[in-house]
Amino acid sequence: MHNIKLIIEYDGTNYHGWQKQKNAITVQEKIEEVLKTLTRANINLIGAGRTDAGAHARGQTANFRIEDLAIPVNKLPHAINTLLPEDITVKHAEEVPEGFHSRFCAKEKIYSYYILNSKFPSPLARKYSFHYPRALDIKNMRQAGSYLIGTHDFVSFKAAGSKAKTTVREIRGFEIQKEGEMIRTIFRGDGFLYNMVRIMMGTILLVGEGKVPPEYIQHVISSKKRENAGMTLPAKGLILEQVIY
Amino acid sequence: MHNIKLIIEYDGTNYHGWQKQKNAITVQEKIEEVLKTLTRANINLIGAGRTDAGAHARGQTANFRIEDLAIPVNKLPHAINTLLPEDITVKHAEEVPEGFHSRFCAKEKIYSYYILNSKFPSPLARKYSFHYPRALDIKNMRQAGSYLIGTHDFVSFKAAGSKAKTTVREIRGFEIQKEGEMIRTIFRGDGFLYNMVRIMMGTILLVGEGKVPPEYIQHVISSKKRENAGMTLPAKGLILEQVIY
Repeated sequence: MHNIKLIIEYDGTNYHGWQKQKNAITVQEKIEEVLKTLTRANINLIGAGRTDAGAHARGQTANFRIEDLAIPVNKLPHAINTLLPEDITVKHAEEVPEGFHSRFCAKEKIYSYYILNSKFPSPLARKYSFHYPRALDIKNMRQAGSYLIGTHDFVSFKAAGSKAKTTVREIRGFEIQKEGEMIRTIFRGDGFLYNMVRIMMGTILLVGEGKVPPEYIQHVISSKKRENAGMTLPAKGLILEQVIY
Repeated sequence: MHNIKLIIEYDGTNYHGWQKQKNAITVQEKIEEVLKTLTRANINLIGAGRTDAGAHARGQTANFRIEDLAIPVNKLPHAINTLLPEDITVKHAEEVPEGFHSRFCAKEKIYSYYILNSKFPSPLARKYSFHYPRALDIKNMRQAGSYLIGTHDFVSFKAAGSKAKTTVREIRGFEIQKEGEMIRTIFRGDGFLYNMVRIMMGTILLVGEGKVPPEYIQHVISSKKRENAGMTLPAKGLILEQVIY
């Protein structure tokens, strides 16, 4: 039995997220179809995490188990990519121990959220960022983000549909990089609830605009009420950068 | 009579370039249609330069003349953008002297060419860069580019279909920036022949790969033969950054 780990980049614009579902095209399904063509086996590809419809990944990680693998593992990315559409690419494949599970073994995830803070929307950045025209105070946004760091109950930042057993998560890193009009916010954590990054970002935007002070984030966390957090920003600004094991 | 200057960004993926033509959708035509809807006048929008089919712009510049303009010029970008598709945006509009002509008055143009130098193609960068998997020597590419600077007859770097009166141009700047696997090359010059940036870039790639030494560029220029230059790289890596007046 082989257990194969893949690292995958995708432009999520035309997919209903990672996870397979009825009546919608997903990234998982696209890759499983290609693996079936290549191996003639029914493959169950386990992703490190779902990504939302329209969100992107530079480092989604997945694994699958297979009895016989005729293609050498180092040739696998090229073989898969030849059959994949150009909005999905397998960047790496390796054989891993049989116990490896891309979701259960994940120790940390890194996400970026991109905001284009310009007067007019940008045709060139439109699919990979959220356009926000009003002035933003980056210093206050950085301070706001610092209150997210640590182990907290993040139930206030959880979308209604989430079925997570616990809403306690640890945020280990929060960083804002600014290059011209593009603001990139990087979140590191042991895991994220459904829509959590997009809701955290929407709340930090309230701070950036000056509608609430940076300390308001502490109130949102302690209140444990979704209605105190900001809006869920669009998926297109979200990129799953890396899964760490 | 008003003379209005526009600065325009566009994603050229779905257009046959800037300039209006039969049986193909172009950026010029799209904006002229919107201007006609807004002003009820037939507008001739003069661009600073054609861009190739599939090439992009962050700072294409154009002007048009109109007898009566009911919309204040500072409101014009928003009014136009409301009617444009999301792959074209007018970023700036201003009234300019009657003699201003976006093509004839242009003093300098700045273009970028993006090469993604990675093992596998990138779904997220695929529309705005040329993927090149082989190792490149940036230092030699920089030296090669230095030989382009100055006033030369660039006939070797001209596409067959070009009808330019003179093939002498002045290249004023050549710079290579590298960020991770993305290589951005910036060209500044008083003007560029048809496909000239894409052919210069294809020739510099020969140097980067080690097929020819950096000094080979001098030979290409002095030979005045297109066949000595490299291939025309794809339009999708090319962005018109700015037109200077």
